[in-house]
Amino acid sequence: MVYRVHPSERVPHHVDRDYFLRLLSEHIGNNGLLFDAEDLRPYECDGLSAYRELPWIVALPETIEQVQAVLRLCREHGVPVVARGAGTGLSGGALPVANGVLLSLAKFNRILEIDPVNRTARVQPGVRNLAISEAAAPYGLYYAPDPSSQIACTIGGNVAENSGGVHCLKYGLTVHNVLQVRIVTMDGELLTLGGSGYDGPGYDLLALITGSEGLLGVIVEITVKLLPIPPCAQVLLASFDSVEAAGEAVAAIIGAGLVPAGLEMMDNMTIRAVEDFVHAGYPIDAAAIVLCEFDGIAEQVESDLLKARDIFRTRGATDVRQSTGEAERKRFWAGRKAAFPAAGRISPDYYCMDGTIPRKRLPEVLHRIAELSAQYGLMVGNVFHAGDGNLHPLILYDANNPGELERVEELGGKILEVCVEVGGTITGEHGVGVEKINQMCLQFGTSELAQFHAVKRSFDPYGLLNPGKAVPTLHRCAEFGAIHVHRGRVAHPELERF
Amino acid sequence: MVYRVHPSERVPHHVDRDYFLRLLSEHIGNNGLLFDAEDLRPYECDGLSAYRELPWIVALPETIEQVQAVLRLCREHGVPVVARGAGTGLSGGALPVANGVLLSLAKFNRILEIDPVNRTARVQPGVRNLAISEAAAPYGLYYAPDPSSQIACTIGGNVAENSGGVHCLKYGLTVHNVLQVRIVTMDGELLTLGGSGYDGPGYDLLALITGSEGLLGVIVEITVKLLPIPPCAQVLLASFDSVEAAGEAVAAIIGAGLVPAGLEMMDNMTIRAVEDFVHAGYPIDAAAIVLCEFDGIAEQVESDLLKARDIFRTRGATDVRQSTGEAERKRFWAGRKAAFPAAGRISPDYYCMDGTIPRKRLPEVLHRIAELSAQYGLMVGNVFHAGDGNLHPLILYDANNPGELERVEELGGKILEVCVEVGGTITGEHGVGVEKINQMCLQFGTSELAQFHAVKRSFDPYGLLNPGKAVPTLHRCAEFGAIHVHRGRVAHPELERF
Repeated sequence: MVYRVHPSERVPHHVDRDYFLRLLSEHIGNNGLLFDAEDLRPYECDGLSAYRELPWIVALPETIEQVQAVLRLCREHGVPVVARGAGTGLSGGALPVANGVLLSLAKFNRILEIDPVNRTARVQPGVRNLAISEAAAPYGLYYAPDPSSQIACTIGGNVAENSGGVHCLKYGLTVHNVLQVRIVTMDGELLTLGGSGYDGPGYDLLALITGSEGLLGVIVEITVKLLPIPPCAQVLLASFDSVEAAGEAVAAIIGAGLVPAGLEMMDNMTIRAVEDFVHAGYPIDAAAIVLCEFDGIAEQVESDLLKARDIFRTRGATDVRQSTGEAERKRFWAGRKAAFPAAGRISPDYYCMDGTIPRKRLPEVLHRIAELSAQYGLMVGNVFHAGDGNLHPLILYDANNPGELERVEELGGKILEVCVEVGGTITGEHGVGVEKINQMCLQFGTSELAQFHAVKRSFDPYGLLNPGKAVPTLHRCAEFGAIHVHRGRVAHPELERF
Repeated sequence: MVYRVHPSERVPHHVDRDYFLRLLSEHIGNNGLLFDAEDLRPYECDGLSAYRELPWIVALPETIEQVQAVLRLCREHGVPVVARGAGTGLSGGALPVANGVLLSLAKFNRILEIDPVNRTARVQPGVRNLAISEAAAPYGLYYAPDPSSQIACTIGGNVAENSGGVHCLKYGLTVHNVLQVRIVTMDGELLTLGGSGYDGPGYDLLALITGSEGLLGVIVEITVKLLPIPPCAQVLLASFDSVEAAGEAVAAIIGAGLVPAGLEMMDNMTIRAVEDFVHAGYPIDAAAIVLCEFDGIAEQVESDLLKARDIFRTRGATDVRQSTGEAERKRFWAGRKAAFPAAGRISPDYYCMDGTIPRKRLPEVLHRIAELSAQYGLMVGNVFHAGDGNLHPLILYDANNPGELERVEELGGKILEVCVEVGGTITGEHGVGVEKINQMCLQFGTSELAQFHAVKRSFDPYGLLNPGKAVPTLHRCAEFGAIHVHRGRVAHPELERF
């Protein structure tokens, strides 16, 4: 399925491909370029596989200078550019543009420096998330954010999407764990943003770049914070006979002032799918389970576990188990981390949503999702970062049934609209990409969207970087029917500028 | 002393003051306007009292609509605007512009909502930092960032400066504790940035605004995170017979993986000044003291205190005392928080610097500061957030001695240059304001500065908000002599644009 690019988001040009390939090859050599349909195929989508598009050209630069050269050439000729890490993103942020260059950072795969005294790692963007922790392990250090895809996803993609993971409740998202990035702008300028200091002078462009989904610049180097590996970590697995009870137990844990390293919830459908797949030891009859991990020094972990266990029991847990050692702890988490692929085993296709809600609205939102699921006749599993209020409803479907994907998309959109309605957001950690671009029109008013575009122009006045992603044009929103009703505002006077 | 505005930073206009006052009064009434020299006097400086300038007009709006009206009028007539909270800032960020409106947020002093379930407080920008914690206390909650000025400073100023405090080592700066802000742009548009979710869709304009020193918009509402008041907190006071030994003990505490709530250091000169002033119980013969606080549950605090005490002893502490209760704990901190005013008692004037350095460079930097102090014949006391590597050298002087302030400024500049040289930054938490604007030319290259200006234009294309602060024009840097040598780069081709 091809992504429906809105006419206002197209970047037309009339450059001849062979001519442009010759120009590119002068800077990065023929080995760094792909153009045969066969070679382009692996780049046609990212983790949001429902949408596919062959890029015009794939460029694989090896040096910062080569990235600068590619971007300068593209800018000169008005050619759009989409940067790509490992392609594990779930919102289509790395979906190619049919007439654009797909800029892969795959060759930027070196760890440049581990500094155990200052507890930092300086790495290239194509380094895998888990590889940083592996390189830091000899110093007793690790990189905290752990997306479920951490074996495969790259740190550059993590920064672009501001990725989360099961331990973000305590350790924060990518933005809280990055100290410095170097980016190349569409003009080919190399900027160093952020630094070793706690606060930095100047505008916080480091935070601005983090989560900007490849629209502002291409990340070519990253310095991340490392943390000491906690001396002790154990996880509780609590079973409940209703999703509501599990939700209330989660609220009680947070309400008691405990700070779990992770606090995750799964419903029965997901439990069964996972258990059948990775044999994590989950109770397949439970309506919901909560995983609650504490880490730190042994005394504190023990004390926190005791308190959490009490809370779970008081809140109606039918069973509470504690991991008996590192192997079991890892097995409990392996189940959670395999939830998405497990869904893929019980259904030909699945669509993973990602929204956040205020924690106190959890029971109500779960109820609304169940209603929508029944209404659309589509099964929805629920896996979520309960502590953060970050939901991941998994819609199961079969793309071979005509019209089913369209129904799935509509249901997904409705779920996101419920999130916005209760005061939440349309993304927790997966980004907007192409997947949720229409819902951005509900999330924001025209003033905010206009400001987003103004910031975008301050980095990329030509609109060549990852066009059609993350921030909708006001034209798109007008057609989506959102602009003239949002927050009671009428159409923005500056609409015509976009 | 009048701040030397660079010609490229001036915003000339020929608007008649009486005429403009009439326009303003139509929107905010005569009670919201000050224009007599007598009434303008209290606004002529902020905490950086070395620079003074009377504003053209002071406006005190009461509603968001009035702020919008003031900004729209100023934009229409090309009148510059400086927003002001309590005026406790230390870098001159709220220094008025002679032909501009000083926009005081003093009347925005209401706490709009405390939400104990979601642990948030929604407040107006003129609410004092400490007032938020006082309002949250009945729910067992508090607002964590605690600048030394927290009795007086306002949360709006905290956001504008991304303020820190002694507990930021564990709880983060303002940016880590703010969930949402509403700002009015120079166009009079009201934008809502950030939200309740953990990550938000769209660019992270909340982080961009935080610490932007009033250059991008006027903050009119803020939602902050509240935290549960820790059930237990105790502080160690360790004495050392050399500053170097104290510095190494600090590094050892961090190196052991401990996370103190605060980790502060003071040298002998500061200890004596403070002790004489607030009788905090500090050892006046120590070359340096370290304050090290842990908070959390009692078992963990006990365990952490034991470990830290061991480290201090091993690293040569001549004495280690532990606060015996809440009263003593508060007294130990009272000394630290009074360090600046205490310096004011032993010297007619003092100048507080604010730079950060990588922690491992601490002994070397302290040595360089001592050398510079001798060279300039000016006493320098050292108080700092040791855990963060955030230094606050206090230069003592007498403004009545002709030429002495100029020597102080030169010495201050040299100290900041040392910070940059060792890989640090020219500000830790006080902002750049007018104080460090020249050193920004050393901190950043022209590409970064050009990008800062581009971002500024995306919010305020007319350059009317707080002109001459925080980000130097490239013309200023060229005259300061920094541009053509920084990082081996030659003058920026786009220099002429600024």
